[in-house]
Amino acid sequence: MSEPLRIALAGLGTVGAGTLALLRANAEPIARRAGRPLTVVAASARDRKRKRSVDLRGIDWHDDAAAMASRPGIDVVVELIGGSDGIARRVVETAIEHGKHVVTANKALLAHHGTDLAKRAEAKNVSLGFEAAVAGGIPILKVLREGLAGNQIRRIYGILNGTCNYILTQMRDERRDFADVLADAQRLGYAEADPGFDLDGTDTAHKLALLAAVAFGGAVDLDGIHIEGIRHVSARDIEYAAALGYTIKLLGVARPTDHGLEQRVHPCMVPQAAPIAHVEGVFNAVVVEGDAVGRLMLEGRGAGAEPTASAVVADLVDIAAGRGAPGFGVPASVLHAGKTAAMARHRGAYYMRLMVSDRPGVIADVAAALRDQDVSMEQMLQRGRAAAGEAVPVVITTHETEEAAMLRAVTAIGALATVLEPPCLIRIENL
Amino acid sequence: MSEPLRIALAGLGTVGAGTLALLRANAEPIARRAGRPLTVVAASARDRKRKRSVDLRGIDWHDDAAAMASRPGIDVVVELIGGSDGIARRVVETAIEHGKHVVTANKALLAHHGTDLAKRAEAKNVSLGFEAAVAGGIPILKVLREGLAGNQIRRIYGILNGTCNYILTQMRDERRDFADVLADAQRLGYAEADPGFDLDGTDTAHKLALLAAVAFGGAVDLDGIHIEGIRHVSARDIEYAAALGYTIKLLGVARPTDHGLEQRVHPCMVPQAAPIAHVEGVFNAVVVEGDAVGRLMLEGRGAGAEPTASAVVADLVDIAAGRGAPGFGVPASVLHAGKTAAMARHRGAYYMRLMVSDRPGVIADVAAALRDQDVSMEQMLQRGRAAAGEAVPVVITTHETEEAAMLRAVTAIGALATVLEPPCLIRIENL
Repeated sequence: MSEPLRIALAGLGTVGAGTLALLRANAEPIARRAGRPLTVVAASARDRKRKRSVDLRGIDWHDDAAAMASRPGIDVVVELIGGSDGIARRVVETAIEHGKHVVTANKALLAHHGTDLAKRAEAKNVSLGFEAAVAGGIPILKVLREGLAGNQIRRIYGILNGTCNYILTQMRDERRDFADVLADAQRLGYAEADPGFDLDGTDTAHKLALLAAVAFGGAVDLDGIHIEGIRHVSARDIEYAAALGYTIKLLGVARPTDHGLEQRVHPCMVPQAAPIAHVEGVFNAVVVEGDAVGRLMLEGRGAGAEPTASAVVADLVDIAAGRGAPGFGVPASVLHAGKTAAMARHRGAYYMRLMVSDRPGVIADVAAALRDQDVSMEQMLQRGRAAAGEAVPVVITTHETEEAAMLRAVTAIGALATVLEPPCLIRIENL
Repeated sequence: MSEPLRIALAGLGTVGAGTLALLRANAEPIARRAGRPLTVVAASARDRKRKRSVDLRGIDWHDDAAAMASRPGIDVVVELIGGSDGIARRVVETAIEHGKHVVTANKALLAHHGTDLAKRAEAKNVSLGFEAAVAGGIPILKVLREGLAGNQIRRIYGILNGTCNYILTQMRDERRDFADVLADAQRLGYAEADPGFDLDGTDTAHKLALLAAVAFGGAVDLDGIHIEGIRHVSARDIEYAAALGYTIKLLGVARPTDHGLEQRVHPCMVPQAAPIAHVEGVFNAVVVEGDAVGRLMLEGRGAGAEPTASAVVADLVDIAAGRGAPGFGVPASVLHAGKTAAMARHRGAYYMRLMVSDRPGVIADVAAALRDQDVSMEQMLQRGRAAAGEAVPVVITTHETEEAAMLRAVTAIGALATVLEPPCLIRIENL
């Protein structure tokens, strides 16, 4: 067997410790698949004295992760610090600069600087692996890059944030409100104390930017993503969704259109018969629609120490075996900054819930506003009647239309005197 | 860009023609991902004059596929003839012998001769790619071999035959009988005129043998698989399954046990809440349980020209890019022939349906027979009553027990005078 692959671990939090533990626990099968042993020779973390679940004896300690990334005797630096800039970025750039391969789970870093880092890595002829940055243990980047290399991708979409999916699943199954379920999720450790990054769609957008770049061979375009979170999804809308045959999921969706690449993160009504509708709780899933393969779905754990470590080790094995593919599937030099489709040009169907005063003529006014924008109604639901002065919900679904037209109609509808609250709009994804 | 990868295509049926068409349609993105063009330079099929959907101009024709496999000017031979022996095997062996890489969709060939062929390929330092042999377009072998390289696999199971899954789905959704649905499936082209290969589990067993070899790093052990098909599954059992919270699927399952590697193909009751229960119609799915990644499911098209071509091209791109991993994930030299667990040692839960005469004491006799073998009942269902002399169904599920004990109990039960038909036994898979 050849020389060991010498690894430096920057960051020893949950994922860092998990990676070290996995490399040790499965050292023998890993070496068999890699053709050589994988050995952690150096490590760095903020606090050397912190109590850790892993034994660091025999591993060179570095207080300065960037200094570690430049030292000799290391083949690959694993960056598990996190953050789009600061120390994480410095470690990765330093490692590449010094001719070392890099493996990272850092989606923020890649989403902001991925194209630049891929170019740097290529110039130095080293690998940049970031399988762990998207959908945790699901090897979706390898599948896109290699397993589906014969395909042109028509659309890619996924449930990429376990916190949001857990909350939406709980809201549906237990008919509870957002705030209530969120508080529970925080208590259980499924949501951060500061959950904005997850709930507002930022985390999903980071992952979508990377998925889209690999799927469509473009430069990472985080700024081109339309982002909405799940805070405005109500228990009432989840109930209506079920009545209409849908489930509400926070999806990241990317597809090439005539207007450029469309990338969007928002709550979606997905048909209950679609496989992704059955992805529940903290699980993640990615669906790829390829021209040859058709619909392919991967479902698994999108976070956690062990699933993330699984992805990190897979990248390390590829490097050890000498089969590191370009991180984005094609040479960084050909990653083109393509056109971004404006969200206003999005075409799709819509769900709209209105709270109206229950009096004759309301529906006629709403229908007229839709007609004025050439938006065609598919279904209308009005259940129950309200006491005088009380608001009653009216739910309307539309046929496929352009987002700009729909928004104009919604503005007109929201301005009606009989419409008592701002309309709630949720896109329907045709799967 | 480097020199093209020169491909010889042996077999121009549905998949062969589909592969050629895909290589042409997506030539540009394929070349970008491979780092070089992929060009079909030679082809061979049984009948040169047959009308085909693809244009063969510019491709050297060979009447003799084995002769083609030995000629110079070819880097890789794609074998799409089929059959475990005869011409397909000769083509593959000849190609390897002459230092050419091989890509094949031939599950029968690999299931019977995979270990031997992998050793030959390794001795000649060429790649043997067979992604297309298992689950069509689903890149499960790459995922097992590379994407999950850090894991020890605890269990792998899958819906690997679209014909069987289509029939079982139809039987359930339309409450129709096996023979009826089969006739329909044959008319629609979802089942072969001679469907035994699919219905009796042979096709699933071929694929399971390859999955298990890659997942567990052992020699391909087709003979070690316990195989049952779906012909004995009745509409009545499907209905009882639903009442008990299960769906019936034909699964291939492999897992290491204390008694050796357990490999089995048989109809299973799977919990309706399990993701694989929602894999419907002709779709295939494979679930991998890894010690680090947890549960990972891949679902997609398991057959058809385009999905299969997608898998063939992925193997070709890996070869073109110089990252052909060993077909079974580890050097063929270390593929060990491990111990095979006897099916009698299988531990699991069981569903048993009896047709009994409706008279006092029947259940007591059945319960005593189970007790005598230390089999613990979980549920008993007896619905409706029969007229005198008519058989009435009784359904029993058990807790986990050893197969040998269960079979002894079933024999005893079948011998009871009040049990009017041979008991129907379906294993419950704990997912």
